[in-house]
Amino acid sequence: MYRSRFNVDMNKSSFNYTSSTVNDTQIMFYDIIGSQAHVLMLYKNNIITKTDTNKILKALEELKTTTITNESNSDDIHELIESLVVSKIGLVCGGKMHTARSRNDQISFDLRLKLRDDVNTLCINILDLIEVLVLLANKNKRTIMPLYTHLQQAQIGLFSHYLLSYADSLFRDFDRLYYAYDRINESPLGAGPIGGTSIAIDRKFVVDILNFKQSIHNSIDAVSTRDFIAEYVSVISILMTNISRLSEDFIIWSTSEFAFIELDDAFTSTSSIMPHKKNCDVLEIARGKTSRVIGNMISIFTILKGLPSGYNRDLQEIKLPLWSSSEMSIQTISVIKILLENIIVKKSNMENMVLGGYLTSLDIAEELVKHKLTFRIAHKIVGKLVQAAYDLNKPLSTLTNVDLSKSIGNYEQYISISSLIKIIKSITTNSSLRNRTSYGSSGFNEQYKMIKSRLQKIEKYKLKMTKRKNKVNEATSRLSAEVNKIIKRV
Amino acid sequence: MYRSRFNVDMNKSSFNYTSSTVNDTQIMFYDIIGSQAHVLMLYKNNIITKTDTNKILKALEELKTTTITNESNSDDIHELIESLVVSKIGLVCGGKMHTARSRNDQISFDLRLKLRDDVNTLCINILDLIEVLVLLANKNKRTIMPLYTHLQQAQIGLFSHYLLSYADSLFRDFDRLYYAYDRINESPLGAGPIGGTSIAIDRKFVVDILNFKQSIHNSIDAVSTRDFIAEYVSVISILMTNISRLSEDFIIWSTSEFAFIELDDAFTSTSSIMPHKKNCDVLEIARGKTSRVIGNMISIFTILKGLPSGYNRDLQEIKLPLWSSSEMSIQTISVIKILLENIIVKKSNMENMVLGGYLTSLDIAEELVKHKLTFRIAHKIVGKLVQAAYDLNKPLSTLTNVDLSKSIGNYEQYISISSLIKIIKSITTNSSLRNRTSYGSSGFNEQYKMIKSRLQKIEKYKLKMTKRKNKVNEATSRLSAEVNKIIKRV
Amino acid sequence: MYRSRFNVDMNKSSFNYTSSTVNDTQIMFYDIIGSQAHVLMLYKNNIITKTDTNKILKALEELKTTTITNESNSDDIHELIESLVVSKIGLVCGGKMHTARSRNDQISFDLRLKLRDDVNTLCINILDLIEVLVLLANKNKRTIMPLYTHLQQAQIGLFSHYLLSYADSLFRDFDRLYYAYDRINESPLGAGPIGGTSIAIDRKFVVDILNFKQSIHNSIDAVSTRDFIAEYVSVISILMTNISRLSEDFIIWSTSEFAFIELDDAFTSTSSIMPHKKNCDVLEIARGKTSRVIGNMISIFTILKGLPSGYNRDLQEIKLPLWSSSEMSIQTISVIKILLENIIVKKSNMENMVLGGYLTSLDIAEELVKHKLTFRIAHKIVGKLVQAAYDLNKPLSTLTNVDLSKSIGNYEQYISISSLIKIIKSITTNSSLRNRTSYGSSGFNEQYKMIKSRLQKIEKYKLKMTKRKNKVNEATSRLSAEVNKIIKRV
Amino acid sequence: MYRSRFNVDMNKSSFNYTSSTVNDTQIMFYDIIGSQAHVLMLYKNNIITKTDTNKILKALEELKTTTITNESNSDDIHELIESLVVSKIGLVCGGKMHTARSRNDQISFDLRLKLRDDVNTLCINILDLIEVLVLLANKNKRTIMPLYTHLQQAQIGLFSHYLLSYADSLFRDFDRLYYAYDRINESPLGAGPIGGTSIAIDRKFVVDILNFKQSIHNSIDAVSTRDFIAEYVSVISILMTNISRLSEDFIIWSTSEFAFIELDDAFTSTSSIMPHKKNCDVLEIARGKTSRVIGNMISIFTILKGLPSGYNRDLQEIKLPLWSSSEMSIQTISVIKILLENIIVKKSNMENMVLGGYLTSLDIAEELVKHKLTFRIAHKIVGKLVQAAYDLNKPLSTLTNVDLSKSIGNYEQYISISSLIKIIKSITTNSSLRNRTSYGSSGFNEQYKMIKSRLQKIEKYKLKMTKRKNKVNEATSRLSAEVNKIIKRV
Repeated sequence: MYRSRFNVDMNKSSFNYTSSTVNDTQIMFYDIIGSQAHVLMLYKNNIITKTDTNKILKALEELKTTTITNESNSDDIHELIESLVVSKIGLVCGGKMHTARSRNDQISFDLRLKLRDDVNTLCINILDLIEVLVLLANKNKRTIMPLYTHLQQAQIGLFSHYLLSYADSLFRDFDRLYYAYDRINESPLGAGPIGGTSIAIDRKFVVDILNFKQSIHNSIDAVSTRDFIAEYVSVISILMTNISRLSEDFIIWSTSEFAFIELDDAFTSTSSIMPHKKNCDVLEIARGKTSRVIGNMISIFTILKGLPSGYNRDLQEIKLPLWSSSEMSIQTISVIKILLENIIVKKSNMENMVLGGYLTSLDIAEELVKHKLTFRIAHKIVGKLVQAAYDLNKPLSTLTNVDLSKSIGNYEQYISISSLIKIIKSITTNSSLRNRTSYGSSGFNEQYKMIKSRLQKIEKYKLKMTKRKNKVNEATSRLSAEVNKIIKRV
Repeated sequence: MYRSRFNVDMNKSSFNYTSSTVNDTQIMFYDIIGSQAHVLMLYKNNIITKTDTNKILKALEELKTTTITNESNSDDIHELIESLVVSKIGLVCGGKMHTARSRNDQISFDLRLKLRDDVNTLCINILDLIEVLVLLANKNKRTIMPLYTHLQQAQIGLFSHYLLSYADSLFRDFDRLYYAYDRINESPLGAGPIGGTSIAIDRKFVVDILNFKQSIHNSIDAVSTRDFIAEYVSVISILMTNISRLSEDFIIWSTSEFAFIELDDAFTSTSSIMPHKKNCDVLEIARGKTSRVIGNMISIFTILKGLPSGYNRDLQEIKLPLWSSSEMSIQTISVIKILLENIIVKKSNMENMVLGGYLTSLDIAEELVKHKLTFRIAHKIVGKLVQAAYDLNKPLSTLTNVDLSKSIGNYEQYISISSLIKIIKSITTNSSLRNRTSYGSSGFNEQYKMIKSRLQKIEKYKLKMTKRKNKVNEATSRLSAEVNKIIKRV
Repeated sequence: MYRSRFNVDMNKSSFNYTSSTVNDTQIMFYDIIGSQAHVLMLYKNNIITKTDTNKILKALEELKTTTITNESNSDDIHELIESLVVSKIGLVCGGKMHTARSRNDQISFDLRLKLRDDVNTLCINILDLIEVLVLLANKNKRTIMPLYTHLQQAQIGLFSHYLLSYADSLFRDFDRLYYAYDRINESPLGAGPIGGTSIAIDRKFVVDILNFKQSIHNSIDAVSTRDFIAEYVSVISILMTNISRLSEDFIIWSTSEFAFIELDDAFTSTSSIMPHKKNCDVLEIARGKTSRVIGNMISIFTILKGLPSGYNRDLQEIKLPLWSSSEMSIQTISVIKILLENIIVKKSNMENMVLGGYLTSLDIAEELVKHKLTFRIAHKIVGKLVQAAYDLNKPLSTLTNVDLSKSIGNYEQYISISSLIKIIKSITTNSSLRNRTSYGSSGFNEQYKMIKSRLQKIEKYKLKMTKRKNKVNEATSRLSAEVNKIIKRV
Repeated sequence: MYRSRFNVDMNKSSFNYTSSTVNDTQIMFYDIIGSQAHVLMLYKNNIITKTDTNKILKALEELKTTTITNESNSDDIHELIESLVVSKIGLVCGGKMHTARSRNDQISFDLRLKLRDDVNTLCINILDLIEVLVLLANKNKRTIMPLYTHLQQAQIGLFSHYLLSYADSLFRDFDRLYYAYDRINESPLGAGPIGGTSIAIDRKFVVDILNFKQSIHNSIDAVSTRDFIAEYVSVISILMTNISRLSEDFIIWSTSEFAFIELDDAFTSTSSIMPHKKNCDVLEIARGKTSRVIGNMISIFTILKGLPSGYNRDLQEIKLPLWSSSEMSIQTISVIKILLENIIVKKSNMENMVLGGYLTSLDIAEELVKHKLTFRIAHKIVGKLVQAAYDLNKPLSTLTNVDLSKSIGNYEQYISISSLIKIIKSITTNSSLRNRTSYGSSGFNEQYKMIKSRLQKIEKYKLKMTKRKNKVNEATSRLSAEVNKIIKRV
């Protein structure tokens, strides 16, 4: 269709290598509505006639329900759709559709239309997942478990506290996506191949009808930049990295050795050979897909690095990593949500694990501080106690006067053995969580506050999303209405 | 200092492997002021006495001018600074400095203090570079040159148009950095090791005195998350990718074959063996550093992926890629700025290059559209003309009646040869740029408008930066004032 | 099929998220022949009867021509094939097929069978491409052109010299792939789920019948390691990086400004809007696909990093990046080959470009060395001459006595102006290439030698490949023969 | 020194941006001995005199003990060393050192000299680590523990079996490095800037004196290619990925919940705030450094992708990621070795963990196969048993007749309850490992065989390394001898 200058077709294997038509089905719908908006603009600015407009819009409308097969002879979806329109209504009329437009502005436009929708879907899914986390936290705000640093037991804590920490990560992921939208939601249409056009187009018309924020002003920039995609895949990679951390925690907590949680049978796989296996495949795949999203991001950055200004065909290779990043992240968020809705929390295992270790060591040290000891000295004393307990293979709470005397040596100048023993005995799981009053800590009270404020935040965010989603729906409806007006009018 | 529990020191090679003290010099200053803010908070909440506070603050103040050597025996800068304080004022007093604080909240706090400054420096440098680009555009708003797609000549354009497109990319880079700041500028201090503390601290005090936006609420989240760093390095990678594209353009335009621009001798290197060489090393290194920033980003994402919640020592390995990403990007932006201030634009070479090719082909096709031809037919006709010109090895404008007749064949039904020849002759370099009136195009008029609006935007952005920078300066001054009040009061 | 323990099916969206059946079609054939080899082994070791063996092998043989649809209810191709066998011949017989085998050893085995074939295809394609390069070099061993460093003209050279340098890179790529094969071509079968089996299997049987090099000894290692894949994708990434460099050179040389080569029309694309465009899309896509292969490599490394020993489902996510890396590299090598067979070399443009610059500067300096000057002094002198020529805007060869005197100043102590002028005049394009006699240089004679030796090397390598390919064919035939013996015998 | 053509120095910030002198200290030694070899070659081929040779070699020899400071005014180490030689012996003599050499061939040569040494060091360290693993395996060939897939208990196994699996991975890492050496150990010297030289050099002289395998034939290839570095960093990344998997296993096994191993106190860190903490920081840092090595690899691949042929300054940016990859991997291997030499294996914890689960399920199913049941039916039956045991919260071995009847339902047609119970009771931890006789399995006997063969393999590999190391030592000695002969002779 476009090889006006050449007398030969493209070499077959070269064509197979370069054509993106098959992969472009993901943007076919967007290409059609983008073309309708463009054609309406041409009509409103007296560049094409009402009759031509009517025919082209009708032909495009019919294509919405057409299925694309591999056999097409087109470079890409843009050429294919123009060809199909031309084959329906003839070259003289259909050949007007691409007036004052290049594939260079068109493809960037299509990508943006699709990404708008992907971002909105992701944002809504993230809010749903956050909600599940906060509700689960609400059920577990008294579920005692160890907190870990370096995968070693650190402090006594609550399961709700972990769940709320994932929720807060996801709120930031939401924020980044919500903001990235601003740079996606701009229109390159009308930039032409690179330097604009001498046809008297009106770029603002398309911006307005499809509810874009604005045109990308500079036409070289409009066709060259893919930074909105680099931003989008970076933000998705961060999101998936957060999900991979949740997955890692849950995989470890599902081992027989930890046994803090158990996935519902409907969310586990087994083995072809070992009949007893119950594996957390969903979580492992979430972790694996995180790596793939990161790899996709690198593909995209490596394509962009050092590319000259203006459209270069390398940019086509961004499509597949982009489609798959969107798909994997949307799917992951929604599967993790259902998995969490069905998770089994083994509260007594969690609570038992708190008893064995030395999880109150910081509580004891801080109690010593309250008894006017210097923190660093308190740290030394408790360090000695822990080592004694470890050597004697007993819990801290059962250390005797003699054990204490032996272990703390000349630190007795700072605290008497009897006071020390009183302090040790006074610290329990419950006292630890009652006294932990610092803002955002594992303390019992802090959980109530955090849960309440997060539930409010979810509502606020949902409202924002409804507004944004409505803007996109409004755009599609408005375009449809305009198209129908023309089609039916004639 | 911290090995209270153990009776042995760390194995020497293991220590060398794990200690980050040498690399931590980049955050030494921030660790000191963070510690001062923390100690002030302890004092204001009656956790330590005025006398102790005075001594600790004084010791910390003195450390600001101390140089760290390799020989330290500390895990990291945090342990080192506490050790130095203790060695100055004794354990009983100095050992109070770390009350209700863990290295886990402390390191995240230090990183954020440093990144605040790095982001501001970068933002200011970006604005300076944008300004140089726009001023250079202003000098070249009549400098005609070919625009390229696929590195092949596409349309007639203006050098200013390219320069302005880089400026617009950089504005988006600025926006992303400016926004990332919001997630950097939050305080994890007071989160303790992971689950908070039973000491009656006031997290908001530190937030207020150092002008943070807010505390990171959930203490698990506060010590675990590095998503603010992942976001920062992603945003920097996008920025550098944009710079690498500018570099690629300028490297190609500096070849003898293009010869559109020439770097000033002071910005070029030569060869150890070939005395004639004049190489664009600065631009090549900018391109190379882009790759390194991307690699650093991958290091960081790969560290984070699948890491369990809570602090893990893997996070230490984020530091070096982070320091080097900040440094490379700050340096690159400022060197490119000076290089552009000294660039030689070879206007006549640029303009000459426009004449040889077929750069008016779209102008001709669009003129045919204005003569009521369907665009796709116009495209066919001009395609034939170009091929004829190519075969005859002449410019389009010298094609004769006979040449035209032969080449367009039965397309003559759409346009007479005489009209066609008139159209071809009517299109000149100047007419092309005069008629290119679409918004943001290469047209002469569009340049004026874009330059004017960008100059205004620069002013607006500079104002924003001044405000933000002042907030940080205010924080440091306020802390200093408080510290001095205590130090001097006693 | 495998959920013996559970009473519920997998949750639907969870199943869609985890099932790899659709993507596994790439290894379906390999899974079938691997299963046949395994079943034969069970039979030969009296673990299953001849009758059962016959039925299973027959059922498997029939599956070779079955097409898989999406609707399967299986986790993956392994479960699907076993299910299909069972549905054909019943559970009592078909259920014996998986005796003493786990999907954990099976999937690694399938991947290795497929990669063996992929490596061989790639190796053969690389040799074909090398041959095209060397033959093109042979046609261009007198085609003079500038050599570039920093994209700036450096020395006079020959086009053949460039072409041969790509060939030599590709020989190393071949070597790496050929060697990686050694670690691919090992059999994990018989490792069971991780710790082996109590059934009296014979791992060597499968090794022998399918011509593997050996079994992977340790069964934990056998099911856990994917280092052979990491090596394979690294080696492919290096290969593609080399191709991307060739592509970059050719894209730049195809610009109107360089105009050294031109792609045949059948290998170029044009523009939807600019009828004159002739773009090197194939080369740009090769460059883009390089980035995607690098991204795939990162996906795979990031999946593997920090994964516990034993099979984890994350490993499934390696498949797609692996398939696409194989496919993209095989396709790229073969398309580039045809493109080069059809390339147009514009010899006179290349040669003309040599005349303008200062490409003889090193030749002059070296001539001065032959006149007993210190090289560094010669470099200084020629540097001055070049700058004079540049300032006067003339070629080096037209500098006059006066020009020389003025420019070299007190370097006249080392060489008289008259000798200097004689030397300058004595250096021509031809003399430069005649005198360049160092081993592997651009000198005329070196081209003959390199071409001759490379043609011999190609023959030697082709022989190696034939042998290796035959080994694989022999394996498949031998297995087929054994299967047929059983099927027909009964 | 090289700016013969220009009258101005490089702009200061541009110089700071581009100069690599500080980082080049890593190759200073190699640059000196490379220069000595080059100068000897010039002398042997009568290009410079004996007197000049003597002076230059002496000056270079003295530089071996000179320390480089930041204040140098040189682009890089090459310019610096030539400058220092010139400042010692004057321009007329010292300026001859760089005859027929460019920094383009020189830098690639230096990198190869350094990488030869790095590869050898790494190979030797890997063998040492393998030896520690095999010796530890030897001590633990009766240490029973669960084997894991998906981090869930899979089969009964032995600790030795895990340790040997790491050893086997490392053998492959060794093989890859050993082989990569072949492509590192080639000499680009004599390639000049890109197209060779007209001076009558002898490239083979340097190859022979420094024991390189051969010259890189094509001079364009010699100065352009960095594929030997891409291969090296890929191979290191694979190595580190393997180490990261070992680290992950050991970190998980060190948790209180698993408690299979414990690091010696000298290899653990503690907390600044929680005195009880004993963290596996070394292993976490090994995991983190793996990510950094992967990031470095990406930096390097991204630099190389799409770079035109011939030297480009982007290549300089390869240096830092390369140095750090070598350093991190060498350090990691040697620290992990000492850590393993000091590890505490908690045999009884490991063995106890075997008892709780359903680890004999495959053993039971295979016993049923030996009783002529179809494997898939056996799998079903055991699946039911496991679920019954799980629901009743008892071990498999205590299931009663009634439990069995209820759970297996109509599978009783295949096996009587009494036989089934007999089979279940017959399977013990010891019987499981006695009967596991498949090649490379966890069976007791297999451990003996694997340990024995690996010890032999270590010896064989050590011999190979000694030979290779000797070749390098021989080269350095031979060069030294030749240099001394000249220096003293005069």
